[in-house]
Amino acid sequence: MEKILDFFNEKDQFAKHCGIKVTEAAAGYAKGEMEIKPHHLNGAGTVHGGALFTLADFIFAVASNSHGQLSLAINANISFFKGQSEGVLTATAKELSINPKLGTYNIEIVNEAGSRIADFTGTVYRKSQAVLCSL
Amino acid sequence: MEKILDFFNEKDQFAKHCGIKVTEAAAGYAKGEMEIKPHHLNGAGTVHGGALFTLADFIFAVASNSHGQLSLAINANISFFKGQSEGVLTATAKELSINPKLGTYNIEIVNEAGSRIADFTGTVYRKSQAVLCSL
Amino acid sequence: MEKILDFFNEKDQFAKHCGIKVTEAAAGYAKGEMEIKPHHLNGAGTVHGGALFTLADFIFAVASNSHGQLSLAINANISFFKGQSEGVLTATAKELSINPKLGTYNIEIVNEAGSRIADFTGTVYRKSQAVLCSL
Amino acid sequence: MEKILDFFNEKDQFAKHCGIKVTEAAAGYAKGEMEIKPHHLNGAGTVHGGALFTLADFIFAVASNSHGQLSLAINANISFFKGQSEGVLTATAKELSINPKLGTYNIEIVNEAGSRIADFTGTVYRKSQAVLCSL
Repeated sequence: MEKILDFFNEKDQFAKHCGIKVTEAAAGYAKGEMEIKPHHLNGAGTVHGGALFTLADFIFAVASNSHGQLSLAINANISFFKGQSEGVLTATAKELSINPKLGTYNIEIVNEAGSRIADFTGTVYRKSQAVLCSL
Repeated sequence: MEKILDFFNEKDQFAKHCGIKVTEAAAGYAKGEMEIKPHHLNGAGTVHGGALFTLADFIFAVASNSHGQLSLAINANISFFKGQSEGVLTATAKELSINPKLGTYNIEIVNEAGSRIADFTGTVYRKSQAVLCSL
Repeated sequence: MEKILDFFNEKDQFAKHCGIKVTEAAAGYAKGEMEIKPHHLNGAGTVHGGALFTLADFIFAVASNSHGQLSLAINANISFFKGQSEGVLTATAKELSINPKLGTYNIEIVNEAGSRIADFTGTVYRKSQAVLCSL
Repeated sequence: MEKILDFFNEKDQFAKHCGIKVTEAAAGYAKGEMEIKPHHLNGAGTVHGGALFTLADFIFAVASNSHGQLSLAINANISFFKGQSEGVLTATAKELSINPKLGTYNIEIVNEAGSRIADFTGTVYRKSQAVLCSL
């Protein structure tokens, strides 16, 4: 698990570029965070939907790959609840369903006060290769 | 329209940070692009789902705000069709439906060969303020 | 609340046609069920995605209208986890977010053994009329 | 193709129960219709979201199974644009992407005047069995 954590924090260039870090991972589970910086903002001065999606999507990737089997996102759905301009956002993944070929995860993003900022549901296709070998 | 284009290319910090540019806009329509760079890649070496979503989401924002009425994303759904590691991606928005309070848009992302890379559908809530005043 | 329950069980013709009943409701919450009958099945002999969606959508309508303000569905997303051919399915709604104009709800469908069969997330636009007056 | 059409019109019990018929099918394509009857209405007197979803979902099933390989829905997303109380609704499927394991389809529902009533995007998992053998 430690290896998977390091792997994702090291190898995911776009997550690095966005200042996102995974902090916890276990089978079917992951948690991570992003501190809002000026470069995360949209024209309205709140955190960009793309930054929120990227935070959720990265934690989704860690949770879905946590079983060691390479898992690629098929699709995702995100709802945005309120604008946020500063502070640390936390994303937590929960496994809704898994079978040999498909897995579905819910990722919730909250602010430091614990208010829900966005809610994400995504599905992966699970390949037969192992994560660490194939990457 | 020129003003809305400049406004989005100038004021959206996260789109700038991701190297995304809007190139065309008209009422209910927008088009833009992102050249894939190493910082857009995920751990598997293909463009990150978060980067694809950000490209679509930004073009969605331009198209939905093109009528001059401030429009905020409520939610979005994205399907990923194939991994892409280099070249320029183009996103094109189409207005599916609009009424005084809500608008729904489809955004298609293709690579230079014209192959579909991702498909996005998003809905905005239209506020009563004007875009340029309120921002 | 009793009135809202009766209202939905009486007035929703399609829910009746599909054999769906709401059994509990409270502010931001609802629960209901559907017993699988032959007319709910698809060509593969399992409960049709449209029947699962209808069950979730109806419980979503009750939960979102439970505050007494008329609420109309804008969109919804559903994931299907496993085929089911018989027994009673139960759907439970949870309010993820609410503001004066919009509300988002998660609805989970489980079988009698408690296994997750489908997961639904939907968003409503909240009008200014009251539910019972306007309908 | 004729066999697939008959198969779906005959064997899908829930589509029959809802009065939905597929009228055209070709590789990656299908078209069908539903005449709005009182039993399709919700408490507000407009066609139920579940009936619209069922119409789209059935046409999605025909289009995705049209290649002869058994295809099961993984998930779907639907946006509702306007209430409709009478007339015939037509749903048309378009294939957005296909590979040996996954296929994604867009289904558009219009009324007799050609106005968009709803828009649906769904993804299937393609099994190795043939449709007609396995069903």
